[in-house]
Amino acid sequence: MLKVSIAPDGREFPLPTEQDNEQERKVLLQITQEQRAKGRKIVAVQGLGFVGCVMASVVADATDKDGNPIYYVHGHQRASKRSYWKVPIINSGVPPVSSSDPEVPQIFHRTVVEKKNFRATSEDSVYSLVDVVVVDIQLDATKPAFGEAEKGYCDITAFREGIRMLGQHINPECLVLVETTVPPGTCQKVVKPILEEEFTKRGIDITQNPPLVAHSYERVMPGSKYVSSIRDFWRVFSGVNPRSIELCREFLSNVLDVENYPLTQLDNTNASELAKTMENSYRATNIALTLEWARFAEQIGVDIFKVRDAIRKRKGTHDNLLRPSLGVGGYCLTKDPVLANWAMGALFEVPGMLSMAINSVNINDTMPLHTIDLIKREIPDVRNLRITVLGVSYLENVGDTRHSPSKTLVEFLRKDLSHVRAHDPYVEHWDELEEVTVEKDLPAILEGSEVVIFAVGHDQYKNLEPKEVVDMCKTRPLIIDCSNFLDDVKINKYKGLGCKVRGVGKGHIV
Amino acid sequence: MLKVSIAPDGREFPLPTEQDNEQERKVLLQITQEQRAKGRKIVAVQGLGFVGCVMASVVADATDKDGNPIYYVHGHQRASKRSYWKVPIINSGVPPVSSSDPEVPQIFHRTVVEKKNFRATSEDSVYSLVDVVVVDIQLDATKPAFGEAEKGYCDITAFREGIRMLGQHINPECLVLVETTVPPGTCQKVVKPILEEEFTKRGIDITQNPPLVAHSYERVMPGSKYVSSIRDFWRVFSGVNPRSIELCREFLSNVLDVENYPLTQLDNTNASELAKTMENSYRATNIALTLEWARFAEQIGVDIFKVRDAIRKRKGTHDNLLRPSLGVGGYCLTKDPVLANWAMGALFEVPGMLSMAINSVNINDTMPLHTIDLIKREIPDVRNLRITVLGVSYLENVGDTRHSPSKTLVEFLRKDLSHVRAHDPYVEHWDELEEVTVEKDLPAILEGSEVVIFAVGHDQYKNLEPKEVVDMCKTRPLIIDCSNFLDDVKINKYKGLGCKVRGVGKGHIV
Repeated sequence: MLKVSIAPDGREFPLPTEQDNEQERKVLLQITQEQRAKGRKIVAVQGLGFVGCVMASVVADATDKDGNPIYYVHGHQRASKRSYWKVPIINSGVPPVSSSDPEVPQIFHRTVVEKKNFRATSEDSVYSLVDVVVVDIQLDATKPAFGEAEKGYCDITAFREGIRMLGQHINPECLVLVETTVPPGTCQKVVKPILEEEFTKRGIDITQNPPLVAHSYERVMPGSKYVSSIRDFWRVFSGVNPRSIELCREFLSNVLDVENYPLTQLDNTNASELAKTMENSYRATNIALTLEWARFAEQIGVDIFKVRDAIRKRKGTHDNLLRPSLGVGGYCLTKDPVLANWAMGALFEVPGMLSMAINSVNINDTMPLHTIDLIKREIPDVRNLRITVLGVSYLENVGDTRHSPSKTLVEFLRKDLSHVRAHDPYVEHWDELEEVTVEKDLPAILEGSEVVIFAVGHDQYKNLEPKEVVDMCKTRPLIIDCSNFLDDVKINKYKGLGCKVRGVGKGHIV
Repeated sequence: MLKVSIAPDGREFPLPTEQDNEQERKVLLQITQEQRAKGRKIVAVQGLGFVGCVMASVVADATDKDGNPIYYVHGHQRASKRSYWKVPIINSGVPPVSSSDPEVPQIFHRTVVEKKNFRATSEDSVYSLVDVVVVDIQLDATKPAFGEAEKGYCDITAFREGIRMLGQHINPECLVLVETTVPPGTCQKVVKPILEEEFTKRGIDITQNPPLVAHSYERVMPGSKYVSSIRDFWRVFSGVNPRSIELCREFLSNVLDVENYPLTQLDNTNASELAKTMENSYRATNIALTLEWARFAEQIGVDIFKVRDAIRKRKGTHDNLLRPSLGVGGYCLTKDPVLANWAMGALFEVPGMLSMAINSVNINDTMPLHTIDLIKREIPDVRNLRITVLGVSYLENVGDTRHSPSKTLVEFLRKDLSHVRAHDPYVEHWDELEEVTVEKDLPAILEGSEVVIFAVGHDQYKNLEPKEVVDMCKTRPLIIDCSNFLDDVKINKYKGLGCKVRGVGKGHIV
């Protein structure tokens, strides 16, 4: 039976055969020669996930002062059933990610179809042809026990394999630029030794040709400025030796808007790796703090969001203060503290724990349970309770469900034997919680609801008038506001319609 | 024997006798009548400490659109041996606090001597004469065990007595504006009930004349903008009923620069009280986070200060990130999380703990021990080691030693039987650690030092050239930099002179 990879739109793409691969190697060689003849340098991006695919298009879109492309970009994605479809999709000029940023389809069409200097492949030997590899392999933290982030670890097996593949193919002069968020120490203690080992196996003298490894982390945000958040933003970088630092600076300067966002060079890759994980730990800690004060505020008649606004008046010293919500999702704040804490012991044998950061992950991971507590304070027995969750993505007006706190919410409500229905205008399919259908028909899903949870601040939900909601429900549901999505005027309208309203950190409405 | 109160400059002031007090009552009455005849409202400030004395002068300095004083201010300080001297000192036109802010002596001279609308007294009955009382009684948290802030509590006995005195004297129409940082709930659950009780005893019908209690917290900073930090800055306020809110708004609008810093009104006094303690808990949490990462950075060759600079490039989202140091001092960050955590259980019976904030206090309180660890990594046996601590105040270029982390540092070094000498150009007398003499003669104190700790970033220390320090020491001391006071150039100079250098969060120099 032919193995196929199925794209999100249902189209099936057969995985390449050995014959296909042989043909592909010829194509890659020919393209590369043609592009070199045009004076272009050749780049491979390893991993065409959330960051890699857009980064690849940004690199391809970079031009010299005459407006000509500086690089030809090979995007590399392994020929797995799960992901191979990205290769033919990209090569048709279409992005493999959906986004509210109109620049995403534009930049794919421009680089793949118009400029013809970005092409995806699943052939591993592509790495033998390139001057720069940008590593965008995904690397996740594993948290074996819920609410015990201190037990979290990082399984770097697949990452090591990806790096080993590079070591087997790349020219020793090739820059390996790790863009993945990695545990501090990874470039020095994982990437460099593997490349040295593979170089040595290939007969390369690593005293003459030490591997050129650099690290620079992205600060990408999904949403309406997805492309710009990669290209037009502050970057931190470093390398394992002077040559890698020099090459990394040159590459980033060609690709990013370093005039408006000058690069920050740090002393070594440990520093750059630590900066990324600390940066996100700072945010995670900040959010965890607000939840604890929100719980207190609820009990003493205080609106924590108004308190937050009052504190944030102090620009430059207090305006980073974040807010409590249903919980923390996404791919960064939920794992980066764990990566760093794990690295401290596993890569450096430094005793102790990053307790502030790790406690924050525990508080944030279990935050959705607080919303369930709010329901149970009003309706102690939630069995068979008809609950509707509005929003399953982790961010407003975005369809990204990675580590969404709605997952924890729905899972625990279902454990409590509630009837849970979920709605999200941006999510077609909830990959992380396949047993739950994400509905699109709001009136249908709200009908009969006894509890309505405003879980995510999508504009569609913020624009709903209380009367509309109550009319659709045909009940007087308990309204739960997870992060100040309802202002006092709307809350009073709900109350006027006979609904109780409760909210995270909203003690003033009790 | 006559009881006397001794001022910091050594002058002795006898405490007032009952005869003095009787005379004072006549004076107060006469002044108040004269001032009322001029159309001025009368204000009392209760407690002439760090905040109260300057707040009193700012209130007195407030003028109407014609440039005439709006208020006459009675500053009230109890006739204790410890503090009575402030009364005659202020009445001579001299501030009872030393400050690097030139506006402090100016505003005292202007209001006391020129405008003659600010006068201090120790007579309790002054409160019967006033329209507004600003409460600036100090209120501290007690942490019975070092590094166990969760056991901290707030002894409000003296505060309650101060409020009871108000209840016994004030006109029921008088606004009681609490400016002290108090445990959330204090105005509602402590101040208001005491006033109601005392009003009732005096035959006042509290249904007709409910006590008028408001809360608005200062954000004063010692240093060169001391006065301005009270007058020209954002203020949050609320009151226990509409009338107290109205009076509080009117008073603050008269006294502060509300045109450039509009007032923020919150729903109730719980919210205002919570905002202050949360605001400082945010800072405390932020600092504690950096120390844990600094410890990690030290072990992996990373300069945490350069990492911090890289992260802080992200204005508005990451630029509040603070820095590790010797430790956290002062009167706010060390106690406010404890006040709130204590209030949660003691005033509201809310279970749980503000764990992020409380853990941060523990990390911050024990932070000075990390500097001792840095020494012991280089010199395991610190007995008889001659150690010089540069800086004993808690803030650079300020002589304020309240809760200074240098105290913990010196105490623990002395427990380890080190010979510790301390220097500070701004501190005359170390009230909190009387057994240690604070020296002024830098060459004398440095001579023979085996370890020199840059504990506080006074400009005098930052300007020291390595060669000067080493010459004064006549040794090659171990140099300890507690918070990035030495840049890489200076560190290399010290190394060139044969000194080892270590620093909090400075792994790159190891």
